[in-house]
Amino acid sequence: MTVIEQMGAKAKAASQSLAIAGEKKNAALAAIAQALIDNTDNIIAANRIDLDNGEKNGLSAALIDRLTLTEARIKGIADGVLEVMALPDPIGTVISGGTRPNGLRITKVRVPLGVIGIIFESRPNVTADAAVLCLKSGNAVILRGGKEAINSNKCITAVMQDAIESAGLDRNSVQLIEDTSRQSSIELMELTEYLDVLIPRGGKGLIRAVVENAKVPVIETGAGNCHTYVDASADINMAAEIIYNAKTSRPSVCNAIETILVHEDIADKALPVIKARLDEKNVELRGCEKTIAILGSSVKPACESDWETEYGDYILAVKVVSSFDEAVAHIAKYSTGHSECIVTSDYKNAKRFTAVVDAAAVYVNASTRFTDGGMFGLGAEIGISTQKLHTRGPMGLNELTSVKFIIEGDGQVRN
Amino acid sequence: MTVIEQMGAKAKAASQSLAIAGEKKNAALAAIAQALIDNTDNIIAANRIDLDNGEKNGLSAALIDRLTLTEARIKGIADGVLEVMALPDPIGTVISGGTRPNGLRITKVRVPLGVIGIIFESRPNVTADAAVLCLKSGNAVILRGGKEAINSNKCITAVMQDAIESAGLDRNSVQLIEDTSRQSSIELMELTEYLDVLIPRGGKGLIRAVVENAKVPVIETGAGNCHTYVDASADINMAAEIIYNAKTSRPSVCNAIETILVHEDIADKALPVIKARLDEKNVELRGCEKTIAILGSSVKPACESDWETEYGDYILAVKVVSSFDEAVAHIAKYSTGHSECIVTSDYKNAKRFTAVVDAAAVYVNASTRFTDGGMFGLGAEIGISTQKLHTRGPMGLNELTSVKFIIEGDGQVRN
Repeated sequence: MTVIEQMGAKAKAASQSLAIAGEKKNAALAAIAQALIDNTDNIIAANRIDLDNGEKNGLSAALIDRLTLTEARIKGIADGVLEVMALPDPIGTVISGGTRPNGLRITKVRVPLGVIGIIFESRPNVTADAAVLCLKSGNAVILRGGKEAINSNKCITAVMQDAIESAGLDRNSVQLIEDTSRQSSIELMELTEYLDVLIPRGGKGLIRAVVENAKVPVIETGAGNCHTYVDASADINMAAEIIYNAKTSRPSVCNAIETILVHEDIADKALPVIKARLDEKNVELRGCEKTIAILGSSVKPACESDWETEYGDYILAVKVVSSFDEAVAHIAKYSTGHSECIVTSDYKNAKRFTAVVDAAAVYVNASTRFTDGGMFGLGAEIGISTQKLHTRGPMGLNELTSVKFIIEGDGQVRN
Repeated sequence: MTVIEQMGAKAKAASQSLAIAGEKKNAALAAIAQALIDNTDNIIAANRIDLDNGEKNGLSAALIDRLTLTEARIKGIADGVLEVMALPDPIGTVISGGTRPNGLRITKVRVPLGVIGIIFESRPNVTADAAVLCLKSGNAVILRGGKEAINSNKCITAVMQDAIESAGLDRNSVQLIEDTSRQSSIELMELTEYLDVLIPRGGKGLIRAVVENAKVPVIETGAGNCHTYVDASADINMAAEIIYNAKTSRPSVCNAIETILVHEDIADKALPVIKARLDEKNVELRGCEKTIAILGSSVKPACESDWETEYGDYILAVKVVSSFDEAVAHIAKYSTGHSECIVTSDYKNAKRFTAVVDAAAVYVNASTRFTDGGMFGLGAEIGISTQKLHTRGPMGLNELTSVKFIIEGDGQVRN
């Protein structure tokens, strides 16, 4: 057995006790939150090693910032653990059921998935965030973080394991792969005997590599080439506010928009208002010919690749469309199926847009930035699924579960 | 573009109209049922070619039987289509929803998965059964059947496509891959751009190959190493009837049992009663040492591989266990997570068994043969999932769907 196979076997064993751990799970979460606070100095010292290495290796300021743990950030992580603790336990929930004509009572109940693998990049807060969501939903987890955060991750994991053990649960409920070579990722992706699902959290390259190479089931997360379509009947000021919010409130995240589509009947009036609002944040516009004809040559010409790109930055592609159908066809062609929005005053178009656009979240008259487990009322999220299998959209605790049918009889046999 | 990529693109286009096809889907199903009856002679003639080829190639009598279509069997397929037609349409069902404090109305609704691939072996009835379940749930389907049934499959598919078109839907809603080489399977498994899920239906080898090689999401079906545990407090006659039914009513199917575990406190009395019942069907027993000590040397000794084997035949492995925990541990080690049963009169053990045994269907005092979409009240099934992701247990129409969040606002933006 390789080291990772051994971890798989230990996780599988831990998952069996976690599945029936009941209120001990909350005791473990409380212990984790307290232990993170109690070990703040140790965690910061471990993080210091990662930061020093990062500076030596020339990490960008943005990456260094994402890697940095402070007393306040550790307190924030601990508060997040307590928030997850306060959520209802999904395990054992009866989803449906009934008594069949032959007297068999059939109940469909939520059970944990079992063993979850998480592959993520350099943010060490994911270590605790992901682990506690898995724990609360009764799953054992194997974490594989980026090499930049390995010392922070090792320290946080050890703190969590001790806390879990102090609450009477198996410390192998949470494990970290300490080998950050490419080989360890590949082994995890092929751990079919032990892993029930693998969730990549990070950039496009990481997610693509996992989807391409994994032999275990994967939940694809995160890619967001999102659009807002301004219909002919849109309230122009509302459209400008929604676009401003969806583009500029946090451009790097997956629910930010990358392209707007504007109906030609309203483009003359709407585009200058939208541009004026975006100018406040110096958003670079890349437009089609009609857009440039209206807004002038301060707008750069857009090329094919602009319709495909998730900028993650203060850049927005703009296209004037001649019909609702053209807007919908553009979205069908370029959307990654994350979040799509129409701004309209037309009841029929609102209804039609929500029916025909194929995405995890389809909006009428609201910013796509709401696509988020917290905003949707799920309490917390482990990511946003952009695939259709198992779950789609923000994933909370319910989405980390499977089901089991319980059939209770009195000796029934099948004819 | 390869032929299969072209089929993928056509299926994707068809899926967009199918997603909003509403009652046209039932019109298409009615037309398919009628067309199958009207074309009975053509289908039987095409099937005759497959049967002649099969006989030339020395197919076993059992395979020839599974391959054979008669007027009665075609009528049975058509009746199945009408049964699916009568089921409620899952698309558009509101699963959950509510209004957030900021006034956003969020509704989670069922939508089709999109494009489903089905890889199956020699039974030509699967062609129609699988296609109509996909159609009813608003999904386009690409079928890849075995070479033994290729002429039957081509004829049935053409009949269905004409019927679908006559109802005003896209004939590419159902497509058959006519190339039955290994290469076409592999291309389908790698069709990530177009396929939302691939479902293998067939033997262990086929399922294993798909799980190992697919780059698209897969739903694993079918493997069933199922157990019945006879607890110390069991009603012995009930246990014998349940075991007799679960082993002999249809030994080749995945919900038949392969091993029984009998508590040592009841084994002396129970095993002779169980054996007497199984002797009526000449079931071969393979037992542990304690079993042979009780039942005598007419029972063959079981070896390790017997605990692992899905016989699919009139063979049953028998093990005497010294405790409830030993039975549960044996099941945890050897079960494929399909269907597991306890026969008991003890309330605590019944409750505990359903809590700790990790399988799609966990039974108390009933035959495992009930694990089936029809028996569970789902109306029809496309297979039985033995994985935990997306769906577990019998898969009906709901299990062929995904979800979409619809968010309706009045200009809300995120702080």
